Amino acid sequence: MKLVDVFRARRRIAPYVRRTPLVLSRWLSDLAGAAVSLKLESLQVSNSFKARGAFNAVIARLEGGHPPARLVTASAGNHGRALAAAAETFHVPLVVFTPVDAPHGKLAAIVRHGAELRAQARDYDAAEHLAKAFAAETGAEFISPYNDANVIAGAATIWLEIADEAPATDTVIVPIGGGGLISGVAAAAKAINSAIAVNGVEVEASCPFQTSVRAGRLVPIVPGPTLADGLAGNPDSDTITFAFIQTLVDRIVTVSEADLSAAIAGLVESEHLVVEGAGAAGVSALIGKCLDVTGRRVVIVVSGANVDAVRLTSILST
Amino acid sequence: MKLVDVFRARRRIAPYVRRTPLVLSRWLSDLAGAAVSLKLESLQVSNSFKARGAFNAVIARLEGGHPPARLVTASAGNHGRALAAAAETFHVPLVVFTPVDAPHGKLAAIVRHGAELRAQARDYDAAEHLAKAFAAETGAEFISPYNDANVIAGAATIWLEIADEAPATDTVIVPIGGGGLISGVAAAAKAINSAIAVNGVEVEASCPFQTSVRAGRLVPIVPGPTLADGLAGNPDSDTITFAFIQTLVDRIVTVSEADLSAAIAGLVESEHLVVEGAGAAGVSALIGKCLDVTGRRVVIVVSGANVDAVRLTSILST
Repeated sequence: MKLVDVFRARRRIAPYVRRTPLVLSRWLSDLAGAAVSLKLESLQVSNSFKARGAFNAVIARLEGGHPPARLVTASAGNHGRALAAAAETFHVPLVVFTPVDAPHGKLAAIVRHGAELRAQARDYDAAEHLAKAFAAETGAEFISPYNDANVIAGAATIWLEIADEAPATDTVIVPIGGGGLISGVAAAAKAINSAIAVNGVEVEASCPFQTSVRAGRLVPIVPGPTLADGLAGNPDSDTITFAFIQTLVDRIVTVSEADLSAAIAGLVESEHLVVEGAGAAGVSALIGKCLDVTGRRVVIVVSGANVDAVRLTSILST
Repeated sequence: MKLVDVFRARRRIAPYVRRTPLVLSRWLSDLAGAAVSLKLESLQVSNSFKARGAFNAVIARLEGGHPPARLVTASAGNHGRALAAAAETFHVPLVVFTPVDAPHGKLAAIVRHGAELRAQARDYDAAEHLAKAFAAETGAEFISPYNDANVIAGAATIWLEIADEAPATDTVIVPIGGGGLISGVAAAAKAINSAIAVNGVEVEASCPFQTSVRAGRLVPIVPGPTLADGLAGNPDSDTITFAFIQTLVDRIVTVSEADLSAAIAGLVESEHLVVEGAGAAGVSALIGKCLDVTGRRVVIVVSGANVDAVRLTSILST
């Protein structure tokens, strides 16, 4: 990915997405002995960073002069919601395959945007399998939530905002699901300042990239249950995000469910922010002392807010 | 207040405060049959709009060439927190009087910013009485949370951001405590567009301005307990905000504790936002059907987020 692609993406999506706040967290700064800021993609349109990639992917296809007759995707929920918003804006029919137990709020939003929801898969991997089979059968165009250059360039626009507001940042912490977010952020951040330290966070229950980087090739793992529903599952066997992560990510750590839960509760308590499990992964890495960032200028990407109120209440009550 | 004072305030405070997001709420738009957006001062520096007025009041005094040796204020918590941040920035000693039962998070932040906290008063009115007595005794300069032209001009800067992003707004809903926020917003909004409808919201448990506007003069009321701790109490008997409200506010409604509670829970559930009682007052007015805004383009000022996690959890659990 060239940096100019990110600038192109930013211009393209500007009318549809929000420049999100970058806020200093006194709580995390004290905890980590560092200057820790949060990039609040939880406040992005659709309540996750996915709006950036989804709008970029749809508009790039329209600019190409061959508007797809129908789109299909697989999603743990947030990409489906964001792509449904983009598809609605440009009047393109969309079918979204998700796990059957995806959070209610994510599924309701997909339906509200007029997409056809098929919430029938056992897990994310099965949803992706069904979506690709549907594309092959019907001719609908499959847009991957992460294995797509335009989706990655859209996510990378986050870094242009951070570089603009906090050019002295020397460390970034980013959650990893399919790897689209960290691929875009790492590529833009290192193109602007090669000295920046890029840290990825997976959950212990599902860490295909830490496993695969160690193995030197993509190794499928068996995902377990996790509060970070947005991060569970295996990536495509041909995903372009693996090469990005191998070459641009300095370190991948894994976080426990207890640390995720403490991060979600701590963000409500100390920063008055509602964040979903995946969105809290970066904060969990500091709470669990998985990363030492003493004395650094750190930005944590808080990727999304789509947690159901019942689950949030139960986390706050424990 | 002249509009140019608001522009002056904006320039003055720009390095210290945040341009907060203005976000469309699909939930409230559907509920009210209107286009309803939220101005998220809950995400302002210090987690309330008070940072705008506090920095403006302190910097204006420094610009005047007579920096106060010591400041004193009274506050339900948010103004104290914001003024403590401003006083810390400019190395001015500050004493803050608050009610003894103000939320823990507000009090802890006042101390963290290095101000001297006196959380000893029975309620807000008693805190204001103590702060003025302290000023008279010691020569410290009293900065009122609302009865101060610079504090009001600071609050008014909110409207410059709204006019910039959503010039078609025709209705605004603003909580009323001491009246500083609505005075500033109403003055700026009507100076820019005299046709705008300005609605104020008080809580049933403490509604001195609705009562006083009806009486044609300031009438003291007896405040009861409320979730909106930031709105409880009587204003100064000579408050300049009364004239602003009499002449510029089109309507004042009151909301119940049940509607406040539903608004706080609904904001977490539908918008993934943490908001304190006072901050949720505008939303409560739509939930409780106190205001009919059908077909209008509405902005609700969400004034603050400083609710303690224990209280929030108990609201979410009911």
